[in-house]
Amino acid sequence: MSETFALDPRLAADSVFVADGPLSQVRLMDDARFPWLLLVPRVPGAAEWIDLDGGQQRLLLAEINRVSHLLRAEPGVEKLNIAALGNIVRQLHVHLVGRHSADPAWPGPVWGNGTAVRHEAGALATLREHWGSRLG
Amino acid sequence: MSETFALDPRLAADSVFVADGPLSQVRLMDDARFPWLLLVPRVPGAAEWIDLDGGQQRLLLAEINRVSHLLRAEPGVEKLNIAALGNIVRQLHVHLVGRHSADPAWPGPVWGNGTAVRHEAGALATLREHWGSRLG
Repeated sequence: MSETFALDPRLAADSVFVADGPLSQVRLMDDARFPWLLLVPRVPGAAEWIDLDGGQQRLLLAEINRVSHLLRAEPGVEKLNIAALGNIVRQLHVHLVGRHSADPAWPGPVWGNGTAVRHEAGALATLREHWGSRLG
Repeated sequence: MSETFALDPRLAADSVFVADGPLSQVRLMDDARFPWLLLVPRVPGAAEWIDLDGGQQRLLLAEINRVSHLLRAEPGVEKLNIAALGNIVRQLHVHLVGRHSADPAWPGPVWGNGTAVRHEAGALATLREHWGSRLG
C-alpha cells in the first residue's frame, strides 16, 4: 500500500497516544468519566473490521485481548464494552471501555452520552504513563 | 463444561432465532428501525470476549466476518456497527447493525435510543427466511 497511515484529526483531538501495538496505535480517550482506550489500526483506508485481512484481524484480536485483560484488572471495572462504530469518524477504531454500575452513563452506552470531562493535565500525564508502561 | 447453554430471557424476548453458526446462535433483533443481528456464543457462563478461549474467539471472528459481509450488502447500509456491551444482559452477545445516515439514531448508537419498533408478523417471518437462507 502506497498510502501512509494518518490519524483522523478528531481522534487526535479527543485522545492521546499511549503506545504502538503490532497493528494499532493505542490511545487513551481524554474523558475522565471512564477508563477508555482506543485501538486504531495503522492500515490506510480501513473503515470496517472486514476491511482488514486475516492477518491484520488476528493482530487486532490479540491487541483487544491484551487491552481487555488490563482494563478488567482496573479498580472498579465490572464490565467491558468493546465496539467498532465509526458513524462519525470513519477511520477504523475499536473502543474498549471499562464500565461499572455507578458510572455516569450506566447502563447506556458511552457514545453520545453527554460531554467528555477532560483530564487535568497532571492526571492525563500520569494515566499515559500508567497505560504506556503496560502496553509499550 | 457440564453446564448447558441457555439463552438469556431478555435476548429471547427481543430477538428471533435465525440460524446456528459453528459457535453462536444467530438471532435477528425484532426492531424494524435497523437491520440488526446478534451472535450469541453457545458457551455457558461467557460474559466477556476474553471469557472465550482462542479457538472460540476464532470461530466468533469468522461468524462476525460472515454476518458483516452480508449486512454490508443489504440495500442502504453505509456503515457497520459491531459491539459487545452487555451492561444490561450479561450473557455474551455481539451486536451487528447496518447503519445509514438517515436512520433514526444516526450518528448516535442504537442502544438506549428510543423504543424498538416491532416487525409486523409477516415481515418478521420474511426476514427470518431472508437471513436463515443466507446463514443456515
